[in-house]
Amino acid sequence: MDVVDALVGAVAATPGVTVLDRSSDSAHNRSVLSLAGEADALVRAVVTLYEHALSVIDLRGHHGEHPRLGAVDVVPFIPIEGATMADCVELARRVGREVGERLGVPVYLYEEAATQASRRNLEDIRRGEFEGLASKMADHAWAPDFGPSQPHPTAGATVIGARMPLIAYNVNLGTNRLDVAKKIASAVRFSSGGLRHVKAMAVTLEDRDLVQVSMNLTNYEKTPIHRALELVKREADRYGVAVLESEIVGLVPAAALAAAARWYLRLDRFEPDQVLEDRLRRVRTG
Amino acid sequence: MDVVDALVGAVAATPGVTVLDRSSDSAHNRSVLSLAGEADALVRAVVTLYEHALSVIDLRGHHGEHPRLGAVDVVPFIPIEGATMADCVELARRVGREVGERLGVPVYLYEEAATQASRRNLEDIRRGEFEGLASKMADHAWAPDFGPSQPHPTAGATVIGARMPLIAYNVNLGTNRLDVAKKIASAVRFSSGGLRHVKAMAVTLEDRDLVQVSMNLTNYEKTPIHRALELVKREADRYGVAVLESEIVGLVPAAALAAAARWYLRLDRFEPDQVLEDRLRRVRTG
Repeated sequence: MDVVDALVGAVAATPGVTVLDRSSDSAHNRSVLSLAGEADALVRAVVTLYEHALSVIDLRGHHGEHPRLGAVDVVPFIPIEGATMADCVELARRVGREVGERLGVPVYLYEEAATQASRRNLEDIRRGEFEGLASKMADHAWAPDFGPSQPHPTAGATVIGARMPLIAYNVNLGTNRLDVAKKIASAVRFSSGGLRHVKAMAVTLEDRDLVQVSMNLTNYEKTPIHRALELVKREADRYGVAVLESEIVGLVPAAALAAAARWYLRLDRFEPDQVLEDRLRRVRTG
Repeated sequence: MDVVDALVGAVAATPGVTVLDRSSDSAHNRSVLSLAGEADALVRAVVTLYEHALSVIDLRGHHGEHPRLGAVDVVPFIPIEGATMADCVELARRVGREVGERLGVPVYLYEEAATQASRRNLEDIRRGEFEGLASKMADHAWAPDFGPSQPHPTAGATVIGARMPLIAYNVNLGTNRLDVAKKIASAVRFSSGGLRHVKAMAVTLEDRDLVQVSMNLTNYEKTPIHRALELVKREADRYGVAVLESEIVGLVPAAALAAAARWYLRLDRFEPDQVLEDRLRRVRTG
């Protein structure tokens, strides 16, 4: 933990950058940081993170349950507060070039920043992990987007990209029948024919004696929260099961809630400019 | 308009105050300003407005369609961005004392700042208008909350208070039958037995050949948007009429949209702290 504390301290000391959240899991032997800031400050903070991580983390002695490819495993840039996906793709490339060419760590660009379809999914890039990296990179198809064509000896490789914020969204059903939750999860998730930006699985909530459809919404603009809920409701109704409540785990962008309000309230001609607080901030910043 | 421009200029020059909106209506012969700011800055701006208005407006020669009691007719303080209603009541009293005791204009406190039930409604205080003010104030029941017990010779009296932001909310029906819209408006509005914080009337939209239930929601926390819409939908269904869409005219607090999203999505345990942008601002401001 002293290694992680030092890394967080270095990042937090970067002017213009806010540490929104941090978490560490000892079984996973992995830490997650959420940073927010303007473009240039964020680039400085992330490069600082790589520099410090390279000096103190040696993956040759690292064990943990969570798959990983590098000392700094994955850095997704996420657009908020008026930033666009194009802005985030550009940041991913800027940081990628710096990390690859100056720090000597092979960089794969993923998701919206990917240069090839086969590199969109993190899982595909990470398959084989740190231990299998040298043989994976011997295949020319896995030449990195930036940096050397062999793994960094202690830091492996790294994955940098741009994606939408992910919404962790669960719907609790008025039953303890896991088979019903499984059927609903199967109906709504992309992998088995459902909505494009939904991942879903069935979970039993032992303490409440009921089941849950647990989802990740990976693009709330294209597959909004309300569409996922309404499809779950429709499928549950087929089995005579009620939807008790839903929950958002962690953070949600304000625009995702506003979209649900607009849809249910049938506000066809609503403009984001009509939100009082947004107008206020816009007028103040000119 | 040069008088109004000068007043707006004086207010806008107050450090820490933002002019969010302004509008003037020549038939009404009345201007409305929307100001935003921290408490102290807002008090300075509003007192400045009174001082300037007293020096340039003489109601003895003023005519217009809109009822009015004073040169500065009514000042409602409205809580946004973490301010509470109690904060707004305190501001109303601070400004009221200053305007009454130092500037010599009788002040009535209204709505949430009212000192008596008979002074909650603006219409009751304003009845009789500037021209009837001297005789109205001769009745001890209309002794002001601050300031002299006779009208200011040129500026009359003024009404200051605190209230929730008002949401102008219209629902368009899939029919041109005004009688149906009238029945629905009557069912949902407080004055004829409906929801406590709803004012409603029926309107014909000539150009679209359909009718509208036009509402003012005067307290979106106690009577939220979704409850008004759902009641309109239920009543419309009784007459075999569909709800086509709804619209918010002007500004709406972000919390009012978030409340609708929470209700329709059944997010029973959602905390405002989970909105990403709110978390960001809170962390940044410590």
